[in-house]
Amino acid sequence: MKKYCYGTCFLISIAINILFSIYLYLGGGDRWVAKNPDITYGSPLTWTEKAAEEAEAVAAISCSGHGIAFLDGLISDGQPVCECYDCYGGTDCSELSPGCAADADSGDPIFLEPFWMQNAAASAVVIPGWHRMSYRYADDTLMSTELETYIRKLHSIVGNAITEGRYMVFGVGSSQLLSAAVYALSSENSSSPSNVVASIPFYPMYKSQTVLFNSENFQFEGDTNSWQSNNQTNNTDVIEFVTSPNNPDGELKKSVLGGKTIYDHAYFWPHFTPIPGPSDHDLMIFTLSKLTGHAGTRFGWAIIKDKDVYEKFLNYIFTADLGISKDTQLRVLKLLKVAIEQDGKPLFQFAYNKMRDRWDRLTSVLSKSTRFSTQNRHHLHCNFFNKTRLPSPAYVWVKCEREEDDDCGAVLEAGNIISRSGRVFSAKDRYTRLSLIKSQDDFELLLKRLTELVSLEKNSIETM
Amino acid sequence: MKKYCYGTCFLISIAINILFSIYLYLGGGDRWVAKNPDITYGSPLTWTEKAAEEAEAVAAISCSGHGIAFLDGLISDGQPVCECYDCYGGTDCSELSPGCAADADSGDPIFLEPFWMQNAAASAVVIPGWHRMSYRYADDTLMSTELETYIRKLHSIVGNAITEGRYMVFGVGSSQLLSAAVYALSSENSSSPSNVVASIPFYPMYKSQTVLFNSENFQFEGDTNSWQSNNQTNNTDVIEFVTSPNNPDGELKKSVLGGKTIYDHAYFWPHFTPIPGPSDHDLMIFTLSKLTGHAGTRFGWAIIKDKDVYEKFLNYIFTADLGISKDTQLRVLKLLKVAIEQDGKPLFQFAYNKMRDRWDRLTSVLSKSTRFSTQNRHHLHCNFFNKTRLPSPAYVWVKCEREEDDDCGAVLEAGNIISRSGRVFSAKDRYTRLSLIKSQDDFELLLKRLTELVSLEKNSIETM
Repeated sequence: MKKYCYGTCFLISIAINILFSIYLYLGGGDRWVAKNPDITYGSPLTWTEKAAEEAEAVAAISCSGHGIAFLDGLISDGQPVCECYDCYGGTDCSELSPGCAADADSGDPIFLEPFWMQNAAASAVVIPGWHRMSYRYADDTLMSTELETYIRKLHSIVGNAITEGRYMVFGVGSSQLLSAAVYALSSENSSSPSNVVASIPFYPMYKSQTVLFNSENFQFEGDTNSWQSNNQTNNTDVIEFVTSPNNPDGELKKSVLGGKTIYDHAYFWPHFTPIPGPSDHDLMIFTLSKLTGHAGTRFGWAIIKDKDVYEKFLNYIFTADLGISKDTQLRVLKLLKVAIEQDGKPLFQFAYNKMRDRWDRLTSVLSKSTRFSTQNRHHLHCNFFNKTRLPSPAYVWVKCEREEDDDCGAVLEAGNIISRSGRVFSAKDRYTRLSLIKSQDDFELLLKRLTELVSLEKNSIETM
Repeated sequence: MKKYCYGTCFLISIAINILFSIYLYLGGGDRWVAKNPDITYGSPLTWTEKAAEEAEAVAAISCSGHGIAFLDGLISDGQPVCECYDCYGGTDCSELSPGCAADADSGDPIFLEPFWMQNAAASAVVIPGWHRMSYRYADDTLMSTELETYIRKLHSIVGNAITEGRYMVFGVGSSQLLSAAVYALSSENSSSPSNVVASIPFYPMYKSQTVLFNSENFQFEGDTNSWQSNNQTNNTDVIEFVTSPNNPDGELKKSVLGGKTIYDHAYFWPHFTPIPGPSDHDLMIFTLSKLTGHAGTRFGWAIIKDKDVYEKFLNYIFTADLGISKDTQLRVLKLLKVAIEQDGKPLFQFAYNKMRDRWDRLTSVLSKSTRFSTQNRHHLHCNFFNKTRLPSPAYVWVKCEREEDDDCGAVLEAGNIISRSGRVFSAKDRYTRLSLIKSQDDFELLLKRLTELVSLEKNSIETM
């Protein structure tokens, strides 16, 4: 019996060894396969293994949870260095710099970074060296049909925009689409330029782009309401920007003039606002940046009702830069496949929980203050989450209530908080914007500094 | 002895089994790792495996060498379909469509696709879901320092541009940089717009961009020489485009006016032209498209001497679209790492051999023709290959010699060849452009159709 087992078990064991060896041998045939592109690839991995190993090695570099090492980071000792979040330093980002200012200036949507780390396997993408070298896709367009399909699916799941029977155009972030939209809506043949307006407080890019391009076709005319009171006749050519939810104050806005309108829906997602129903406007612009958090990817899309406007958009994108990166489009496709998993619940629940938690904690701190107030938030029914809830905007629009605090950004800065002053949004400096969408470290530091500021305020009240 | 071997060998065999099993177990731990981003990743593969398998499965789809399946292709029966080159069809691209026209219109640089397939392992890149979500890199810029370093290395190896002490700006292809350059060189404060000129025949984008943007700062004034003869005084503000080698005719050109000049060096690489020495101009523009063949990636760079001009470039790119895709920059970095391997010899030798072979075969066909002539090509010393050689331009600039053939594009079209007519380049229609940089299938068909055309010509001469 024992002898029988020795023989049979040994043979089985050797057979398993051989099978494992074949497996490993095929997996290691990288170079051979690479020089023979016509062979049929099959599992196990061959030509992708090197790139996969590289990516895993870099992801394995420990940055203490206060930074990340990237594949294209600066190299030191043969591997990329940790890139630390604000206020952290040292080779492994473990050193907190004391007295460092809380930077709540930029709209960098790093609050979603942990979601993508948690979904590492589903969201990684391999780009082969020969991927989409052509200017065009098989259907002769500059846009991926598959990607367009997924964007339409996403809007249908979230219920935030009507896409049926509408055209779609991709751009380099929503930024490029903002200027494409102004171009597409402006009257080329008009002897006088179209007037571009937006309601204060507004995103500064509307103005800076129009001023930079300095086109004969359009000019920036500032605040919508001021423009309306100065131009009572309705025959003037005007293009109105409506940002909804608004940047900086999160308000769900509507067109004032009711004419040619560009709806900037960058923030119209369930993590920032209740979705009362699908937007159904002639021209709507969205961006990946505030949806999945991939600002660096520079990807946006416009949803367009009118065919002529659509064709002017296409012409703009074609002439400006022959379309947008195919590599980017492939990656966005991968990210959106994850975004629509389980009807979007994992992504939007994660994102909403983060934003709600930050607002709850911030509100709790500021409720003790009489010096600082924030925008009002009103309950609304959210069709996506199927409940009535408060908005949880990307930014806090802070007002300094004391009469002498007419530069609210400076007041915060004295408290070691960097914000974005009202004047940037063509508003008064009594207001300033705080970003709530940066990394968790950034948010914690902001909350700490705000708590300090408010407690100073209380102390001074108490000592009076 | 036999019994001894049974025992020891069996134990060794079992030990090897266990080691293999541990290896495979760790490699298969994908989901577990994906939910635990804080753990230390290590070889073997965990979260990258799914993406790697997907990429290999798609690359394994056979398209008969006449097409490719892409990761973001249309899906049929659960996997992406083959996308066939022109004139091929069927689910596996094996069916040649008889009588199909040879399309030599576009500048799609697919001739380099086989190089990247041969270098599959070195050129693949994995983009993790959390890669570079921020608008900015660690140094607060919109451009990857590592990538910039590799571009400078490449120019130093090739010897085609001076980059020491110069600034660099990335753009969405060279396309975006062309308009950024016009913006940066135009006089904002001038009461009259800057005049933009280019020598006929010229790349049509120079005109179409200037017309589209319709800026008050500049206007397109057409041919450089005509402009010069009509404006003898030197005090007029003018911006000259110099394309060298020229598109469409491959000529190494120099500035006519000697004032503010934009050197478009898209084709200034050893596969297209001998490199007589490094270009040393104030403003030079390059593109990945005609270097590695990745037109779809939309990546270009400008090399700039003057700091003010550099800062205007940066402002333009920032305002137009907050920089270019970080995903794209990562991929370009990977491609350039391959490009500079062995001092660039594998890439440029491959590319030059292709172009020289195509020119040799084309010249052999057209040498039998009196009806069609091409641009003259002159021997020059190439510093990169360290030999005297002919240029091998991306395009053939065909002239129809018969008096009645005043629409050369139409003559070729009657011979089932699609070309790009002279008028597109603001030249006469007696000229037309044939692209030599498309796929091998496209080139073979072009040669076949040209041979047919020329043989008809011979027959008609013989029968006279």
